[in-house]
Amino acid sequence: MTETISTSLDQSFLADFYRMSEFGATAGGGVDRQAATAADGEQRRWLQALLEEHGFSVQYDAVGNQFGLLETVPGAPYVLVGSHMDSQPLAGRYDGAYGVLAAAHAGIRLRAKWAQPGNGPKYNLAVVNWFNEEGSRFKPSMMGSSVFTGKLPIEAALGTIDTSGISVREALDAVGCRGNYSGPEASYYAEIHVEQGRSMEKRGLTIGLVDSNWAANKYEFVVHGEQAHTGSAVIADRKDALLGASMLIVAAREVAEHFTETPLHTSVGELHVLPNSPVVVARQVNLLLDLRSADESVLAEADRMLHERISEIELKANVLIEKQTSHCWSVTPYQPEGVALAADVAEELGFPFAKVKTLAGHDSTNMKDIVPTVMLFVPSVDGISHNEHEFTHDEDIAAGTRMLTAVVDRLCSGALDAGNQVAA
Amino acid sequence: MTETISTSLDQSFLADFYRMSEFGATAGGGVDRQAATAADGEQRRWLQALLEEHGFSVQYDAVGNQFGLLETVPGAPYVLVGSHMDSQPLAGRYDGAYGVLAAAHAGIRLRAKWAQPGNGPKYNLAVVNWFNEEGSRFKPSMMGSSVFTGKLPIEAALGTIDTSGISVREALDAVGCRGNYSGPEASYYAEIHVEQGRSMEKRGLTIGLVDSNWAANKYEFVVHGEQAHTGSAVIADRKDALLGASMLIVAAREVAEHFTETPLHTSVGELHVLPNSPVVVARQVNLLLDLRSADESVLAEADRMLHERISEIELKANVLIEKQTSHCWSVTPYQPEGVALAADVAEELGFPFAKVKTLAGHDSTNMKDIVPTVMLFVPSVDGISHNEHEFTHDEDIAAGTRMLTAVVDRLCSGALDAGNQVAA
Repeated sequence: MTETISTSLDQSFLADFYRMSEFGATAGGGVDRQAATAADGEQRRWLQALLEEHGFSVQYDAVGNQFGLLETVPGAPYVLVGSHMDSQPLAGRYDGAYGVLAAAHAGIRLRAKWAQPGNGPKYNLAVVNWFNEEGSRFKPSMMGSSVFTGKLPIEAALGTIDTSGISVREALDAVGCRGNYSGPEASYYAEIHVEQGRSMEKRGLTIGLVDSNWAANKYEFVVHGEQAHTGSAVIADRKDALLGASMLIVAAREVAEHFTETPLHTSVGELHVLPNSPVVVARQVNLLLDLRSADESVLAEADRMLHERISEIELKANVLIEKQTSHCWSVTPYQPEGVALAADVAEELGFPFAKVKTLAGHDSTNMKDIVPTVMLFVPSVDGISHNEHEFTHDEDIAAGTRMLTAVVDRLCSGALDAGNQVAA
Repeated sequence: MTETISTSLDQSFLADFYRMSEFGATAGGGVDRQAATAADGEQRRWLQALLEEHGFSVQYDAVGNQFGLLETVPGAPYVLVGSHMDSQPLAGRYDGAYGVLAAAHAGIRLRAKWAQPGNGPKYNLAVVNWFNEEGSRFKPSMMGSSVFTGKLPIEAALGTIDTSGISVREALDAVGCRGNYSGPEASYYAEIHVEQGRSMEKRGLTIGLVDSNWAANKYEFVVHGEQAHTGSAVIADRKDALLGASMLIVAAREVAEHFTETPLHTSVGELHVLPNSPVVVARQVNLLLDLRSADESVLAEADRMLHERISEIELKANVLIEKQTSHCWSVTPYQPEGVALAADVAEELGFPFAKVKTLAGHDSTNMKDIVPTVMLFVPSVDGISHNEHEFTHDEDIAAGTRMLTAVVDRLCSGALDAGNQVAA
């Protein structure tokens, strides 16, 4: 809340933000707009119209990434700027959608600026709405940016099914968002997002410069028990998979609470019970468990503790716990020259800023592995995220859009090209 | 295994048992035949053909209970004998289906006996296949016998929906099993079932005479938390409904383990997580929890302990735990004159027998509240139930069918009418 909303550009951005939040709006003041649902499709058509109205050409690639292209310098590579418009079930209005709209408005403002004589950029500009960042309907998350960056084969993505058996291919076709555009050649990437935590609010920051992500270990565990009658089976005979899973969930929390100096976050958000019948002891439970920390040694120690607990639980609950898949990533930095550029911009615009870390994954986590990437945050009130009550002040989202516009302007001017960088 | 299979009647029964087990057969050697599914419908048509072939008239009532009527004494009331053919998902071949087939064969044998001059019964006979005893697809369990005994309104039963939104009415219509028969006037009821526990096997019994059921408290709990991002939400801020539910499941087991003298069985078989997404802390979990014991004072103490633990969990996990519904029943006896009659029959047939208690609910649990009821058990190998590996020896199911036939014969002759009873 460091800026007042003073300009017609801010007003225009905020009007579009409130219009955009009507797609998939929920009674509780949030949105429910999972990947390639009708609401996601309607919102994508709305974004397309907005971009086309301002001279962008809109294309879809094979995995439904939506690109708004502004080719000012024929044949030159692109600066990509965006985020994702899909949401979790009963989620907030900000999350990735804010970042896509901020990118679109940055593009609209820069097009106007570049139309002035002598102001032309060095790179072309592409606004991007990545497909299925959330991963709630189709796993894995960050699907669109994973395909774009070559981390996930397109056929694997298209063949993924939701719980109703509908594939990504079918779902994208149903909303008319599967295209054959091969994608722009990217030189740089920028993204803005709400923090989804409390650190910036506590420190009174308007802009966070993301310099690295937390390390994370994500596991899919399968707890194997044996079906039995809940009434008649003797307690000592039972191999209750749901009891084993419950002990594992409690253990994960206890491991988190063990680390009092450096935070460790542990969670189980998704769990499936078989057969899930009131009078049957569960034969199997599948669950997704993750551990996250900014300190890799904490993560390694937590991982060791968790596996020790798993062995104890196997004995105590008379079950087998199988680690079916694991997906781990380490603390990885965003390019320091990008952080330095963003610091310079924030200074110039007069926004209170500091370096922050991202605890959540973002499409920028993928993009930073292929091109220099600038990741920005605006604060989240009370850190509420993936919840209808997610909130960021109008002043902050407007400030973030100004900040993103200036960063993209510099990226498009070649400020990060060899020899042009500011001191880190 | 106290009898050899010696007669053609036994052989005929066993042949039908193996034929019957093909409906909804699973690769693992069990059956999957939930209420009013295609497999349940096919099996009901097969039973209808079997009964009609032997002179029974088959009728369906409004909730899909299937009656095979043998009216030997025009206008007289009926002795009902049966169980249920629906199963849990991935269940065993015995459970209720054995009891219905044993009832059908008892009827077929008695019809032949009664056709001899001077052998006519006093009551008519109805073989019954109760609808939806299992309650896995449609809740509550014991639905058909609950409607028949006036405990559940027919409209409430027909309006119940499964997880796909299909109602009992629609599901019964889809398999052609919703009728308009008002049901036979019942004077007595008999049922045979596999024990689903180990007590008879341990004691070397062929026949169990059920003299009472365990007391039970069944609760539906709703754990209320708050949606948050699994990555970024600080552990101390979380209101994780799945963590609270897991603590409750672990607590229920610990309460069971506290009672070492008199057994207490506690279970959670069914649980639903909202939104059940990998990166969202759950906002709500609904679960069904039950406590069972043969000793009502143990149950009362367990209930007190559980509620004490719930208060602790609410504080520790930062959630609210709401008891949405509860359904409790006490230890209730089966009519002692029925137990005495069955003991007399077992003695006469030379089967090792003793009184046993039922830990699970059965359709007879409902029927005994309206008419004198005889409930019989045959042993279960290793007590395995609601599991594809459920098993009872051929000798034992054949013996049980003989036993049931003789019991029903006596009931139909009026042996439990006032003045005719044997000493208890």
